Amino acid sequence: MIKIGRLNLGNAPRVAAVITDDKNGQSLKNAIKQGADLLELRIDFFKGIEPENLSKTVRKIKQSRLPLIATVRSKTEGGKKSLTDRQRKEIFQHIIPIVDAVDIELSSKNIIKDIVGSAKKQNKKVIVSYHNFKETPSDGKLNKIIKDSKKAGADIIKLAAMARNMQDILRLANLTLKHKNLITLSMGSMAKISRVIFPIFGSLITYGEVGVSTASGQMPLNILKKELELYK
Amino acid sequence: MIKIGRLNLGNAPRVAAVITDDKNGQSLKNAIKQGADLLELRIDFFKGIEPENLSKTVRKIKQSRLPLIATVRSKTEGGKKSLTDRQRKEIFQHIIPIVDAVDIELSSKNIIKDIVGSAKKQNKKVIVSYHNFKETPSDGKLNKIIKDSKKAGADIIKLAAMARNMQDILRLANLTLKHKNLITLSMGSMAKISRVIFPIFGSLITYGEVGVSTASGQMPLNILKKELELYK
Repeated sequence: MIKIGRLNLGNAPRVAAVITDDKNGQSLKNAIKQGADLLELRIDFFKGIEPENLSKTVRKIKQSRLPLIATVRSKTEGGKKSLTDRQRKEIFQHIIPIVDAVDIELSSKNIIKDIVGSAKKQNKKVIVSYHNFKETPSDGKLNKIIKDSKKAGADIIKLAAMARNMQDILRLANLTLKHKNLITLSMGSMAKISRVIFPIFGSLITYGEVGVSTASGQMPLNILKKELELYK
Repeated sequence: MIKIGRLNLGNAPRVAAVITDDKNGQSLKNAIKQGADLLELRIDFFKGIEPENLSKTVRKIKQSRLPLIATVRSKTEGGKKSLTDRQRKEIFQHIIPIVDAVDIELSSKNIIKDIVGSAKKQNKKVIVSYHNFKETPSDGKLNKIIKDSKKAGADIIKLAAMARNMQDILRLANLTLKHKNLITLSMGSMAKISRVIFPIFGSLITYGEVGVSTASGQMPLNILKKELELYK
C-alpha cells in the first residue's frame, strides 16, 4: 500500500484540504477542524514565497502533524502566480526536505527530472499531474499520459480534466477503476459528483475547500466528508 | 417528452415515494411532506387487496394529486405477497382506471399482454420492469431485455440489478446514458450511490423510502432529494 507520510492510501478515500498562507492560518484551522486527512500546500497561491518566509509558514503548518503535499502549480496548468521554471525549482528544492510529497506537472519538462530526483533521494512521494481545462482527452491519450508519468517517476498519477458531458465523467471513472495509484477528478459544472464517486471507484485522494477555491467543481471539505460517509 | 399523469419525465430527475396502505397513511403523509414528485403503490405490500378495500385506499391516496404508479410485484422479482397470476391480473384490471401508470415485470409472461393492453386502452403509461437480485447481467443480456420490453409495449423500461462490484455500477450507468426512457438502479451494499448518480446520467425516476424499505440500497426520500439538489 502506498503512503504519504504515515497516511495509508487506497484502503479508504482520503480527503486533502487545499491550504494557502492566508491570514491567521484560517484555512489550516478549518482543515483541522473539518477532519482533513492530509494537506495540499498550493504554494503558487502563497503570498510569501521567499525561502525564509516559506520555511516559517510550512513549519507552522507542519505542527498540525498532517501529511503535506507541496504543489507549485505552473501557470499553464492553472497556477495562480506566474513563476519561472527556475523560481519553481528553487521553491521545490527548498521545500522538499520539510514535506511528505511533491506534486509536479508532467508538462514541466525543464524541471521535472530534477524535482523527482530530489524527492526520491529524500524518500518523499512523487505525484505527477496532468490538468486539462478544455476537455477530457481520449482514453488513448489518457493512457499515454499515465504511461509517461510512470516513466517520469510517478508514485501517484493525478489526472484532472474538464468534463464536457456525462460520458466524459464515466470515461474517467472507468479509467480510475482500471488503474492503480491514480488520483482523478473531473472539472466543470457537472463535475461536482466526481469528487465523491471517483474516490469510491479508487481515486486515492479527493480535494476539499477550506477557504480558497482552486478548481471548478470543488466542494467544501466538511460536505465532502459527509458525502463520502453517506456512500461508503 | 414522456409523462406520467401531468408530470414531465426526463428534463430533471424525479423522485418517487414507495407507498403502502400503512396505518394512518403515514407513508403518504411523509411522501407529501418530503416533496415526492410521484408515488409508487407497492400493492404487494398492501394489507387490504380485496377490490373494495383497494379502491378505497387508492382513492384516498389520489387526493394527494400526485401521479400514481401501480406495482403488484411478483414474488419471483421481489414481491412481498405470494399472489397467483390471476390475482395479480384482477388487481391490475381493478386499479388501472384510477392510476396513471402500471409497472409490470417482463417475466410475467402469462399476464403482461393483457395488462399492457388494458393500460394502453385507458391511456395509462406502461413501465416494463426487470429485477435481478443476484447479479448485473452482461451488456448483451441487458440490451436484449430492453429490446424485449419495448416489444412488449413498454413506454418506460426499468432495470434493477445487484451490483457485485463497482464495474457493474459503471456498466449500468453507461447503459443509462446510451438509452432513452430508462429507469435504472443498482442494488446491494455499494449501490446507494446509484440512486443519485443514475438520475444524473438520465434515469427518469429514482425511488425513496418514506417508511417502508422495499429494496437494498434505497435511501430515505428526504436525503435523496437533498443529494440530487447538491449535484444538479
